[in-house]
Amino acid sequence: MNLLLLSNSTNYGEPYMQWCSSTITSFVKDHSSIIFIPYAGVGFTYDEYTQKVNYALSSFDVKVSNLDNFDDKAKALKDSSAIFVGGGNTFHLLKMLQQFDLLETIQKVVANGKPYVGWSAGSNIASPTIRTTNDMPIVEPKSFQSLSLVPFQINPHYTEKSIPNHGGESRLQRLREFLAANPHQKVIALPESSYLVCNGNQLIYNGRFDGKVITSSGIKAINDQSNVIF
Amino acid sequence: MNLLLLSNSTNYGEPYMQWCSSTITSFVKDHSSIIFIPYAGVGFTYDEYTQKVNYALSSFDVKVSNLDNFDDKAKALKDSSAIFVGGGNTFHLLKMLQQFDLLETIQKVVANGKPYVGWSAGSNIASPTIRTTNDMPIVEPKSFQSLSLVPFQINPHYTEKSIPNHGGESRLQRLREFLAANPHQKVIALPESSYLVCNGNQLIYNGRFDGKVITSSGIKAINDQSNVIF
Repeated sequence: MNLLLLSNSTNYGEPYMQWCSSTITSFVKDHSSIIFIPYAGVGFTYDEYTQKVNYALSSFDVKVSNLDNFDDKAKALKDSSAIFVGGGNTFHLLKMLQQFDLLETIQKVVANGKPYVGWSAGSNIASPTIRTTNDMPIVEPKSFQSLSLVPFQINPHYTEKSIPNHGGESRLQRLREFLAANPHQKVIALPESSYLVCNGNQLIYNGRFDGKVITSSGIKAINDQSNVIF
Repeated sequence: MNLLLLSNSTNYGEPYMQWCSSTITSFVKDHSSIIFIPYAGVGFTYDEYTQKVNYALSSFDVKVSNLDNFDDKAKALKDSSAIFVGGGNTFHLLKMLQQFDLLETIQKVVANGKPYVGWSAGSNIASPTIRTTNDMPIVEPKSFQSLSLVPFQINPHYTEKSIPNHGGESRLQRLREFLAANPHQKVIALPESSYLVCNGNQLIYNGRFDGKVITSSGIKAINDQSNVIF
């Protein structure tokens, strides 16, 4: 397994992918045929989304290809040198992967060592299910089961801040509700500007701020560069 | 149809249900046998949730009964003088109603005029689907189809504010993504401290701040006391 799972593409007020483009391009050694899965994107075309990613990566001389333009999508994934999965809406992303019947193909090629880079929704679907996404369920996937590339749930864009003078649940309250309903699960909460690198069985956390491991029995901080035990 | 659909139970910094307890108790004329559906509650018992509601309504001498304590839940709903559906997690609420096979019973008794009062998740499920909930999908319902008591989607806790210095989509962006994926739908966005009263075919908006009708073709403000055309 060779996974780079990022919390987010873009920090508040910064250009698209500014904080992570060098991390992503140096994580992937072979840039020859990177496939981009754009299906979390809603409200613009998949080519527009791919162009936006390519623009962000252009200073590293890296170019990705839009999976949606391939007739044989499974073959395109198998033949690729790496797979990038962009953010947007997790429900839409999962529904499209189910519709094209691509989940098993991705699982197989990633199990065989093909690098997988996901951000936001693309990190959510690396978990066993999408039950810890922050997204609105704008479309209905066949099921919430996702790629299970890691044996824990990721919560991207994690924050302990709330909208000022607004009710509704905090993020931590939502994750505690998840754990009340799913007591044996484990959540790794990734604040913006953080990511996990999974190489074989080693899982390293990187972030300007601490990440959190949240379970039914409590919360544990994870520091930058530390090995996450899971 | 006799519906009271509230955005939220509690305004920021206020005691539980303070802003709406008088609205709720005066909307329902017959207080003799109100059934409370507590299934959006996660992380505490349904009796605890029912007690909390009863405490908030006690100064109006109104008491509700926890649906979960009835063996024959469909009969309890049919025999009730009104149905209250509390907030919490919309996915959990819908899953439990599906599990007890109660959706059709609620639709029938409400179509026959039984008062229905919902807040937050309880308002979400009055829509055709739960696709415009703000909640985390902590459990997986059989489908996203809900009660269809009204022919539009409700977004409760609506706000145009965001978490300061945090990325991710704004609420309006999320609803625009919903409309991009579901272009013929209509969303009524209810800011906190607002509600809809549906009497027959008349739908009146009440709120300290404007509500919004959001469709693929644009956004229209709805003022306090105005009749919403849908």
